[in-house]
This record gives sequence, C-alpha cells and structure tokens, in this order.
Amino acid sequence: MAKIGILLAGCGVNDGSEIHEAVLTMLALDCLGVERLCLAPNIEQRDVVNHFSGEAVSESRNVLVESARIARGEISDLAAVSASDIDAVIMPGGFGAAKNLSDFALAGEQTEVHPDVLRLLQEMHKVKKPIGAICIAPAVLARALGAFKPELTIGNDLATAKLLESFGARHLDCPVDDIVVDQRNRLVTTPAYMLGPGLREIAVGIDKLVGKIVSMVA
Amino acid sequence: MAKIGILLAGCGVNDGSEIHEAVLTMLALDCLGVERLCLAPNIEQRDVVNHFSGEAVSESRNVLVESARIARGEISDLAAVSASDIDAVIMPGGFGAAKNLSDFALAGEQTEVHPDVLRLLQEMHKVKKPIGAICIAPAVLARALGAFKPELTIGNDLATAKLLESFGARHLDCPVDDIVVDQRNRLVTTPAYMLGPGLREIAVGIDKLVGKIVSMVA
Repeated sequence: MAKIGILLAGCGVNDGSEIHEAVLTMLALDCLGVERLCLAPNIEQRDVVNHFSGEAVSESRNVLVESARIARGEISDLAAVSASDIDAVIMPGGFGAAKNLSDFALAGEQTEVHPDVLRLLQEMHKVKKPIGAICIAPAVLARALGAFKPELTIGNDLATAKLLESFGARHLDCPVDDIVVDQRNRLVTTPAYMLGPGLREIAVGIDKLVGKIVSMVA
Repeated sequence: MAKIGILLAGCGVNDGSEIHEAVLTMLALDCLGVERLCLAPNIEQRDVVNHFSGEAVSESRNVLVESARIARGEISDLAAVSASDIDAVIMPGGFGAAKNLSDFALAGEQTEVHPDVLRLLQEMHKVKKPIGAICIAPAVLARALGAFKPELTIGNDLATAKLLESFGARHLDCPVDDIVVDQRNRLVTTPAYMLGPGLREIAVGIDKLVGKIVSMVA
C-alpha cells in the first residue's frame, strides 16, 4: 500500500500550516485508503501569531510539536525521514510554508528553503516520486527545484507568481477547483486558500490533487 | 439563510477542540451552503498538552485565541453570543469539551459546565433550537440538560455512558457512521473519534449530524 507524506509547518494559517487544507488532504487520502505519514521539522517557529487579533506575540513554539496537533500526535521528525520512506509528499499551505519551511514571506527573491525540506524535496524529485503543494507551498517547491523549471500555480496572484518565476519556475493561472500538473517533474499544485472562498471550493482542488498524486504512485 | 454556531474549545485533541471533527463540521456546513458562526469562551485553557510527547507543559493559552486558529480568525467571544444570534449550535469533541467547556475530564459525577456554555445551551433548548454534539461533547450536553432527560450517544464506552446517565441522560450505543436524534429535546449526537478509526469513518457520522441539524432549522 502506498504511504504518502504530509509535510506540516505548524498549526494555524498565520504562523503554521493552514488547518483546513491539512485536514482536507488527510481526509482525501483516507477516503482513498492510502496511508499517511505526517512529518515536520523540529525547529522553532519563525513567529507566533495570535489568530484572534492577528498580531504577533512574544511566545516561542516548536513546529513539530504544534504540527502534532493536526496529526493527533502521529507525526515524525522530518530529519529522520528520507525519500525511501514515502511514495510521495504533499505540502499544505499556510504562512508556515513561507515562514518555517522557508523564509519566503520575509526574503522574497532571496528565499532560502530549510535544509531538511530542501533535502527531502530534492531526494523525492531525483527518484521521480511525486510532490504535491497547496496554496502558498508551491513557493517552496519553486525555490527548491527552480533549476528544473517546474510548472506550478499559486492561483492568479501576479506579484507572487513573478517571484516564483524569478526562481526558475513557470507559473500557470489556475482556478480554486483545479490543479496544475507538471508531468516531467512529477509535481501537482492547487491554489486552495490563495483564492478561496471557502472549504467547499478548496476541497474540490485538494481532492483532485490528492487523487492525481495517488494515481501517480499506484 | 440559516446561521449555525460552532462552539470551539481550543485547538488540538488533548487540550482543545479535536481539529478533524471541527473542520469536518465546517466542511459539511459549507457544502450545504449554510453560514457558520464560530464561538469560544474567552478563558484560559485548563492545561496545555504537548501533542508530540503527550505530556502537559507549563504554558498558558487562551481558549478563544487558540480556537481562532481553526476558525481562521473568524470567531466570536461566546460571552457576546445568545440563542437569538444563531439557529442551532454544534459542539465538536476533543478534551477541550471536557476540560474547558466543562470539567468533566477531572470531576466526573461532580462535573460543572462553564457558566456561559451552560447559559447558551439552556437558552437554545428553551427556544427549541437544535444542538449537535460530537465525540465527548455530549457529556457537556448531558450535564447542562440532564433535567430534561436527554437521549444521546458517546459511542459504546460503558463507563462514560454511566457517568452521563448519572446526570439524567439516557445513553444509546451508536456506531461511528450514525447519529442519535432526540426529537423531543432537539439534540443530535455522533461518536466520531470516541470510536474512530479514521477521518473517512467519522466524516460519515458528522455529515449525518450536520445534515440533520440543518434539516431541523430549515
């Protein structure tokens, strides 16, 4: 049976993984009878945001520990996981992808991807195992695999798309209920909450993404 | 258009709302085109549990602020919400229902329900607006409305069921993919992760619960 990694980045849209996108990814995998392996880097979050007020607060939280909330404790330290452990990997969105898995939210063109995230994505790409990325997470993919000219989407945000193209990616506009597939690089992306507006709509794109990824490892 | 409250209790199965149950409730409402109003009490959590290690840690977090992670910031202070603001209310499970909305996890037979939770549930019941409760949340319902002999389920856990019956409730065994409906008191309950095993199965029961609640307010 296939085992698909879900790379989390904390717990909450403003400083971690977008919770709805992460749960819908898990639901889609579970409905297809596919095993999941949640993973996250064992590092401090870039920041902690009060999701009621929207303001950053002076707290520190750990990405792996907070991601474990979404995973109900069933999660592995990214450092201990390699491409041989999983058949594909999917990154939900949320600012955690742009703050913890990379520094895209702050560094823009100078973005660096966290070394363990970079390692896993490059390992997966090298052995042609599929990678899915949702919402803003394709920015991580664009930076990590820019040399391979990945085709991907973050919806239709021109400024963000231009940044991704500066990394070497080719951006394609895509509606919330659809996916962009890069067959050559084995990548699947969907805009989700980059476009919204709600759970019903993002679930359609995420279901398509998960279905495509599963079909590629079958 | 109907507006249905979702009463949250934090963010994470061990000290707050069970994230999967909360998101599946939101998804089901969204798919039916029903507006939601997330709400939570503005109080400190009973405890903070590291969901990676499973151990309680010496931190303090606020129930409303953490619930806002699941709600993407769109959430109201329970203290400001009354039965006139919503057509029904649904409580997802997770230990937060038994630690923050009540002290059921610690107090057992001597359980007290948080005053604002008690107020809202009694207001809703009085004007015959439906109440849904998922997983362990029916314990809160049993305590708040025990005088009205509510019929409900927490799955098939005999010890917990006996406690609920000590409050005045009648417990009915129920599989994960089904619901118990108390027409007289306008209550709908489903076991979800009291039984598990996974997202696919709990989604069936939660979809049925949400569908039933929506049909009762239509």
